[in-house]
Amino acid sequence: MSAYRDEDPRLHGIKTKIRVVPHFPKSGIMFQDITTLLLDPKAFKDTIDLFVERYKGKNISVVAGIEARGFIFGPPIALAIGAKFVPLRKPKKLPGKVISQEYILEYGRDCLEMHVGAVEAGERAIVVDDLIATGGTLCAAMDLLERVGAEVVECACVIELPELKGRERLNGKPLYVLVEYLEV
Amino acid sequence: MSAYRDEDPRLHGIKTKIRVVPHFPKSGIMFQDITTLLLDPKAFKDTIDLFVERYKGKNISVVAGIEARGFIFGPPIALAIGAKFVPLRKPKKLPGKVISQEYILEYGRDCLEMHVGAVEAGERAIVVDDLIATGGTLCAAMDLLERVGAEVVECACVIELPELKGRERLNGKPLYVLVEYLEV
Repeated sequence: MSAYRDEDPRLHGIKTKIRVVPHFPKSGIMFQDITTLLLDPKAFKDTIDLFVERYKGKNISVVAGIEARGFIFGPPIALAIGAKFVPLRKPKKLPGKVISQEYILEYGRDCLEMHVGAVEAGERAIVVDDLIATGGTLCAAMDLLERVGAEVVECACVIELPELKGRERLNGKPLYVLVEYLEV
Repeated sequence: MSAYRDEDPRLHGIKTKIRVVPHFPKSGIMFQDITTLLLDPKAFKDTIDLFVERYKGKNISVVAGIEARGFIFGPPIALAIGAKFVPLRKPKKLPGKVISQEYILEYGRDCLEMHVGAVEAGERAIVVDDLIATGGTLCAAMDLLERVGAEVVECACVIELPELKGRERLNGKPLYVLVEYLEV
């Protein structure tokens, strides 16, 4: 945890706007709901500003966002730093030619897809999602970008659930998060 | 079609960045793919700027975006005009208490949901999506907002397919679009 993160007064405001919904999507899960953050224009703007301050001027040309909540946070960051926005989607949603990456969930498998030609070899990318839990989805996203020769500079999430140890699954790739929740 | 729309030089650039993918999601459909627009930071920024110029200073406090591509265009508009962003989602995606609105598709039915408490009576809202085809999804979105007493000021889409006559289904509600495609 960086000193910057501890000190920035905007982080407290952001954290208070995230709602915990117990037992969603199933019994025993404490769901971290960012939709209440989006209802507060100041807190939502602070969230985007914190990411933009971190990535502006770092020669990042790709912001990849994971369906669906990564689509909410990724585009404003991309627009502010002058990067392209690349949506990483569930199967059969992207209309053009795609590459696919399967990943393992608690029960079963899922898959992310990226358009061929969206990202070129040598581009510097960040991957954006609302939350990192076990890290499986972020790993699949990084794999897609690295398979086409892009460099993943960092993964950026609003929320981390440290007890699920997703950070350890990222193969040493840096992860930047704004808030942590210990109760999951 | 307004004179402004005909004259603004940014519109041509936006239109050239939208890709047509034939036969997606099924044979005979010419799919208008906005993901190529997102790859061009200038054209994506121009797209958002055109909406922001239209809605800034109009006392709009709610930008409602329809899952999933409305999540890409809605948040940057909301941030720029100082409004809240309200995601309208497919069933069982929103964790809190919701209201639901069914709508009819070409084959079968679908449903949109909105969190209870996200929008208050009397708020002025716009509904954002990437494309209007038959208008069924936008109608369901407007119904959700009006059921809680909000005023839908306008629907805003990047693309209109005029031959599908979606505009006529909006019950007189204004529709603002940036580009039209006649071949569907």
